[in-house]
Amino acid sequence: MEDLRYAPIGVFDSGVGGLTVAREIVRQIPGERILYFGDTARVPYGSKSQDTIIRFSRQIVHFLQTKGVKAVVVACNTASALALETIAPEMDIPVIGVVIPGARVAAESTKNGKVGVIATKSTIDSGLYTRVITEIDPTVSVYGKACPLFVPLVEEGWLSDPVTVEVARRYLEPLLETGIDTLVMGCTHYPLLRDTLAQVLGEQVLLINPAYETARELKHLLEHEDLINDGACMPDDPENMHSFYVSDAADKFREFANSILPFWVDRAKLIGIDEY
Amino acid sequence: MEDLRYAPIGVFDSGVGGLTVAREIVRQIPGERILYFGDTARVPYGSKSQDTIIRFSRQIVHFLQTKGVKAVVVACNTASALALETIAPEMDIPVIGVVIPGARVAAESTKNGKVGVIATKSTIDSGLYTRVITEIDPTVSVYGKACPLFVPLVEEGWLSDPVTVEVARRYLEPLLETGIDTLVMGCTHYPLLRDTLAQVLGEQVLLINPAYETARELKHLLEHEDLINDGACMPDDPENMHSFYVSDAADKFREFANSILPFWVDRAKLIGIDEY
Repeated sequence: MEDLRYAPIGVFDSGVGGLTVAREIVRQIPGERILYFGDTARVPYGSKSQDTIIRFSRQIVHFLQTKGVKAVVVACNTASALALETIAPEMDIPVIGVVIPGARVAAESTKNGKVGVIATKSTIDSGLYTRVITEIDPTVSVYGKACPLFVPLVEEGWLSDPVTVEVARRYLEPLLETGIDTLVMGCTHYPLLRDTLAQVLGEQVLLINPAYETARELKHLLEHEDLINDGACMPDDPENMHSFYVSDAADKFREFANSILPFWVDRAKLIGIDEY
Repeated sequence: MEDLRYAPIGVFDSGVGGLTVAREIVRQIPGERILYFGDTARVPYGSKSQDTIIRFSRQIVHFLQTKGVKAVVVACNTASALALETIAPEMDIPVIGVVIPGARVAAESTKNGKVGVIATKSTIDSGLYTRVITEIDPTVSVYGKACPLFVPLVEEGWLSDPVTVEVARRYLEPLLETGIDTLVMGCTHYPLLRDTLAQVLGEQVLLINPAYETARELKHLLEHEDLINDGACMPDDPENMHSFYVSDAADKFREFANSILPFWVDRAKLIGIDEY
């Protein structure tokens, strides 16, 4: 049997957003290999139903298993909120999402017991952030707000445009009125809007990026399960360290990946995900 | 053999936008039955690749054929621009899209020979509007502009919000500077922004909605092929006159359909489109 320690970590997202999570994993556990899948043919997930998100996630996890991954990171808040509970028990390798790590640090960080969560409509409607945060600390009040225009604004590249500032003001004002001191960026695209969000929120509100906590939790998990890659058995070519798969538009994905990852992505491979 | 005249017309779109085309068909040829499919599990199409749009469109057309439609209307500009030329020759029933009818009326309407087209990125990149308009009249100059934020703004319901006016100003200003006197709304969501677009454009620019021309062309086609429904053989229950299918979130679709169609939609049926 192959030594699982040298197997890659499967990371998936509805598209490119999960690359912010992959980047954080590479930063915190640089010895690990990543096998990333972005579902660019069916992106976005944020306004779709739970049944559909579960079906898509299950196909992706099957694909990742055919690639022999040792663990799976659901690097998409919507899939973490809507599909993780269903698919994790179906698998014999560890699976973690971004919601629980993000919720945990929010519950631990708030001083006044008022936490805001911004995310896609499906993530907010799932109520998972609220459930996890209040399970950790029942005295915390959680205020959720769906922000469906943030992803298209990021994809348009209007990261600190006056339009984006105005949209952020519109979405965040009801949260600010509740007196929150902590805000979870509950969608992997949102950290790219961090400056705009901080400008609208002011200095009193702490911004939580679940990607950081997720990478930390992954590291603990791998250590605990004795799955940490000790580097004894690496690919000859450093270009084969990480690999990237998508369901559409591989070149556009590669371009975006190269704009945010700290290493060069030579290619992304196109696969037919609905065959899995 | 069944009389094809009594068969429904298949109409499809990536989601709900094509309902504006279905509405126009019902207005202009009220005796026809519509069988609509909205690909709500994989929406939007506007930023995806041609290969993927062709694959999705082919699956949908197969589905519509299993339902015995007598003609297909591709009520999605992106699919019309990227897939119609490939899939139409594969079929033995008439297929029409929205691009050619829209392009034709634009070429005929412009007085100064300057036409603007606003659409999704994939539609603009395909160059089809430009090709068709200049085939009809080589003296016309066509200026295309992708407007990726319009669909999310419509779906957020911000139809005449100051944010939407500002976004429209940003997208339309380069077109206005070219001196266009005609603008094609080359995405089925955009007619819902007509008031905002007209406000930014002023009275000098004529707005073209390809849905109207598409329904007119469909009527001529059915007459020419002797496929017009003479009403002799209608469903007993008027609720069965039209039918609606989606790949996700049937209830949300039904709600939207009832907000824009002139008759009541009792249900939308959920199907697994990737099985076709």
